[in-house]
Amino acid sequence: MPKANPTMPVIPAKPADFQLPAPGRFALVIIDMQRDFLEPGGFGESLGNNVHRLRPIVPVLQRLLVAFRMRGFPVIHTIEGHHPDLTDCPPAKLRRGKDGSRIGDPGPMGRILILGEPGNGIIPELAPVPGELVLTKPGKGAFCRTDLESMLRVQAITHLLVGGVTTEVCVQTTLREANDRGFECLLIEDATESYFPEFKQSTMDMVRAQGGIVAATAHSSDILRSIGVTEPSAGPPSTANPAARPVNATAAQAPSSLHARLAFPLGLAISRNLFPLHP
Amino acid sequence: MPKANPTMPVIPAKPADFQLPAPGRFALVIIDMQRDFLEPGGFGESLGNNVHRLRPIVPVLQRLLVAFRMRGFPVIHTIEGHHPDLTDCPPAKLRRGKDGSRIGDPGPMGRILILGEPGNGIIPELAPVPGELVLTKPGKGAFCRTDLESMLRVQAITHLLVGGVTTEVCVQTTLREANDRGFECLLIEDATESYFPEFKQSTMDMVRAQGGIVAATAHSSDILRSIGVTEPSAGPPSTANPAARPVNATAAQAPSSLHARLAFPLGLAISRNLFPLHP
Repeated sequence: MPKANPTMPVIPAKPADFQLPAPGRFALVIIDMQRDFLEPGGFGESLGNNVHRLRPIVPVLQRLLVAFRMRGFPVIHTIEGHHPDLTDCPPAKLRRGKDGSRIGDPGPMGRILILGEPGNGIIPELAPVPGELVLTKPGKGAFCRTDLESMLRVQAITHLLVGGVTTEVCVQTTLREANDRGFECLLIEDATESYFPEFKQSTMDMVRAQGGIVAATAHSSDILRSIGVTEPSAGPPSTANPAARPVNATAAQAPSSLHARLAFPLGLAISRNLFPLHP
Repeated sequence: MPKANPTMPVIPAKPADFQLPAPGRFALVIIDMQRDFLEPGGFGESLGNNVHRLRPIVPVLQRLLVAFRMRGFPVIHTIEGHHPDLTDCPPAKLRRGKDGSRIGDPGPMGRILILGEPGNGIIPELAPVPGELVLTKPGKGAFCRTDLESMLRVQAITHLLVGGVTTEVCVQTTLREANDRGFECLLIEDATESYFPEFKQSTMDMVRAQGGIVAATAHSSDILRSIGVTEPSAGPPSTANPAARPVNATAAQAPSSLHARLAFPLGLAISRNLFPLHP
């Protein structure tokens, strides 16, 4: 019953191979590779997590990024963060941290999980370049209080190849949202990581159970081979490249060209004023 | 930082106790206790699952239902199902089943996962009664393509006590959606079940990790004790009770009074015409 596309490659995947649609119809989605989650002193560590567990996926995502850029395939980055006045942060979420390390509290890289603060930016190794979408989101799922779905529909993107952190929280939530909206999803096994290895494994098992009830999973090497890029360079971005700095969600802190397609103004507008009934 | 409500009970829970808000501000949410998932011949079994694993939660949910009804607390039931013409079913979801047992195919209890078919109704033991909300949904999450959030906001419901099936699929997806929208959630440990025991356990571990990043979890006995109902009767509903028959999402098949607050007409309206760009 799945329609094969003889002109496009099939990626070896579990529980079934993943048929890529035409170029332009699939995107690489990199979830929340932010300093807040990957570097000491950020929100992730403030919750008691060992942030060093997440580092091994950085070179994998670099290779994927280089390949997608070489081929001109769409790339989407997400950032979890909140407006400085916290009007888009549900009280329930605000209460989760410990005293002194809650969302909005001052941290070593600026206010924790606040858009535009240094710690909220994407790590330099994976800095977006002009033409790539950077979507800010106030929750775990990338579809909640954002215009991601609308942007995907407008571009006729139907298939999402997803990596980033953490596997069982923001990555899984986004996969489940995408699945309910009819997007075909592939979770990239070695391009996603969790603070808890058992949760990463369980998430992969859950999403591909029952015939792939949420998504299929594949290794990055099979994806790269399928799109004809087996050995892309993956060195750190040149510091002379203005796009290689950490990206924050305030236009004042990044090159204007980089923000031509940024989604955060609308994302923030959507996320405002939606919790007035919460105690 | 959490505001205590000295007039309302606190439910012993993990990783932290769960403070109930004022009466009327919290609801029991019962996810997808449908014949399609619990009885032989339905969609769940068509995917290769052992449906008998789910039965033990039925008496637990009966006790909770009786208690909430005694106290006059809000109750919400959900049903996963699709319009007979399948216009609300993403092609990706339609392709998941095996030949002959896909959504919409004829089964022993009517067309599989189609609203209004006998197999799509809630099991008789947990039949909704007038005044309870029955929400149909086309996806796994109860907030996607439905008006659940709007209805909760209108009623100023802020806290959700969630049970039903399956733990890692529809229950977890709904919890994650609710959490991103600022609702405080409690997963009822012995009122939810999965076809895969390891996925139930892992889901409970995931949602309450990192300080309860998605939800807290509690045992039904602690909930019942907290609301002052320790030993409600939980016998099977009388067959003389017109509300005790399986509920389907077609008004023609259930007493009109039962459908006074049914959400399915709007739910279906929302779920239509949203996948036109999908191949």
